[in-house]
Formats: sequence, structure tokens, C-alpha cells
Amino acid sequence: CVGVRRAEIKQGIRELTLCKDTKGVIGMRVKSINKGLFVAFVHKDSPAAMAGLRFGDQILQIDGDTVAGWDTDKAHKVFKNAPANNIKLAVRDRPFERTITMQKDSAGCVGFVFKDNKITSIVKDSSAARNGVLIDHHLVEVNGQNVVGLKEKEIRAIVEACGRTVTITVIPSFLYEHIVKSMGDSLIRKKMDHSIPEI
Amino acid sequence: CVGVRRAEIKQGIRELTLCKDTKGVIGMRVKSINKGLFVAFVHKDSPAAMAGLRFGDQILQIDGDTVAGWDTDKAHKVFKNAPANNIKLAVRDRPFERTITMQKDSAGCVGFVFKDNKITSIVKDSSAARNGVLIDHHLVEVNGQNVVGLKEKEIRAIVEACGRTVTITVIPSFLYEHIVKSMGDSLIRKKMDHSIPEI
Repeated sequence: CVGVRRAEIKQGIRELTLCKDTKGVIGMRVKSINKGLFVAFVHKDSPAAMAGLRFGDQILQIDGDTVAGWDTDKAHKVFKNAPANNIKLAVRDRPFERTITMQKDSAGCVGFVFKDNKITSIVKDSSAARNGVLIDHHLVEVNGQNVVGLKEKEIRAIVEACGRTVTITVIPSFLYEHIVKSMGDSLIRKKMDHSIPEI
Repeated sequence: CVGVRRAEIKQGIRELTLCKDTKGVIGMRVKSINKGLFVAFVHKDSPAAMAGLRFGDQILQIDGDTVAGWDTDKAHKVFKNAPANNIKLAVRDRPFERTITMQKDSAGCVGFVFKDNKITSIVKDSSAARNGVLIDHHLVEVNGQNVVGLKEKEIRAIVEACGRTVTITVIPSFLYEHIVKSMGDSLIRKKMDHSIPEI
């Protein structure tokens, strides 16, 4: 089944170029899932953060090599051995994530309950219920700001600081848990890029 | 947390109206997942098929009632007891599914192997590999045609009949298996809407 390589239709795929920082790192960890490679961690202020890489992005190619089937270790080794400049990536935007937009009610509530990052119940007749928010999903972003690994109180404060409209980005919990499994809580909490996106 | 109901922003949500057929049915089965209600089965030539409902669509409201938290039995009972005409649904398009477009190589291959509907491996350096197709996903559509429950040979024939460009719609296997769990194979194979979409 190996044939001539032809032009591809590549909807939803972007290409970007990274340079290592002065310590020689790009500031990203990945995780292999179902023979694909996914962004698990983006270090704040790192080249990966500057390039706009986000939790859950799927890496398709590194410097022209297709990464399908690579395990996590191989990917990290390739990044380590990559040249300092001009590392080219092909990336598919977060295939497992989706966004849901809700409106706060007069009490300022959108209507879902969460523990850590995990949505655990939906309030009856709330905006969350009407818009089809599901339990057993993890919050990845609130109004575009990464909340992976933040404490409940911190996430609640971000929701409260939103205006009436709240957009959440979620991922099924079984995928979230698989992606973050091998990383320490404090690494995620303290070092991950949680910056507020510029608009 | 119950407040005044305000106007909602409803991206990606469509409203549709169903009427029962002469046997008094709409021709759809649903399944409850994570407190949401999902379309599991659309009977061919039924009112549900005519209305464009598809495997994996999320039902949000039935006749103005928000269905969050309903179990499968309650939903089926509500459909059964609904009036013959003018059943109004709010539906979110297949939140768990996504599409990937590939190009056949000179041998006519796109580069993924499947058993029944399940993608089991990815061919090295194929279009499937370059476009990030994942294993442990089930095929739901090929070029817009529902292939749920079809035999491998039938799906293969549909792929072969495609031109050079093949678009697949996939869903993670754990969700697929949950949705189809309680339905018989022959019901799905023989009665499900597998019609070729009009363009």
C-alpha cells in the first residue's frame, strides 16, 4: 500500500516553526494515544507556548517525519536531538476537545458542578443543561484560558471573572486522565502555561 | 442556582420538527451517556431519517423540555407518548465525531486497516498516517454515507467506489461501543439508514 506521495488536502492542520530557548529546550511534553502524538504539557513562556501549542493538540509531523505510531519516549528523544532552530511541526488543533458556550443566570451561575477539573453534575434547567454539557469531561479552558491542573478555587474565580457569556473547552475524562497520567501535579500547576490569551 | 431564563447563544445547535409515520413511530433510538442523550439508531425511510438525524447527534430538548439527565427509557417513553405531529427537537451535531480527509495513493489505498467498523492499524507513510488517523476509533461514515454495522466487505466497497479523496467520520471506540451496546447486529445492519446522502 505504499504509493507515490501526492498533494494532501489538509483542513484544520497548521504548520509552525520552533526554535529552542537558551537552555536548549522547546518546553513541551507529548503523550502517545491510539498511535497518535498529543501535546500534554506546555511550559509557560517557552518556545512551545510562544508558538501557540496547546494541551491536546495532535502533532502529525516533526521536520517532515510522520509521527504516527511513535511512542512518547521516541518523540521526546527527537525533540532533544533536534537542531536549535527551525524545527518544523505539523499540528492538528485539539481533535478531542470541543467548546460549549453558556450564559450566566441572574445568580451568576452557568449550571455545572466540578471537582478539580472534572465536571461531576449538571444543574437542572441551567444553561449548562440546555447546551448539553456532559459529566465525565474535564475542563481544559475557560474563555480561552488554560485551566489544566488549576485548583477548583482558581477555576471558580476565572468563571466568576467572566462576563455573562462563559465558553468552556472540554475533553472526555478518560482521555484527559491518560494524557496527564505521567506528570506530577506540581509540574502542571506551577509550570504549565496558564496565561490569559491575547485577543 | 435557578435564575431567569435568558436568551442563549446556541452555536452548532439546530431545531427540527418531526411527525410520526402511519405506524405512530419516528424511527429513532437514543442512548444516555454522561447525562446526555445521543442518537443510537435511525430507521431507514423513517421520519427521523427524513429529518436528517444521524448516529451520534446529541438531543438537547424535546418539545421544549431539556433532556439533561434523562435515561434511555424515559426518552423512549416521551417519544412514544408524544403527539403525532409537530414534535420539536433541539439537536447538537455529533459532538463526539470528527472527519478526516485523505487522498488515495497510486495503489488506491488511504492507509488504515479496519475490522468490522474499528480502525485497528495505520499503514506507515500513508495518507492516513500523515493526517493523524487514530486506532481504537470506529468508522461512522465514509464520504457522508453511514456505515455503522455494515460488514467489512461492504465498507471496503464504499471506500473503493470513492474517487481519490476519501473523508471518514470517526468516533472513539469506547463511545461507539457504549452507544450500540443494547442493539442487535441484525437490527443495525438491516434497518439502519445507510442511504447515500444527496448533495
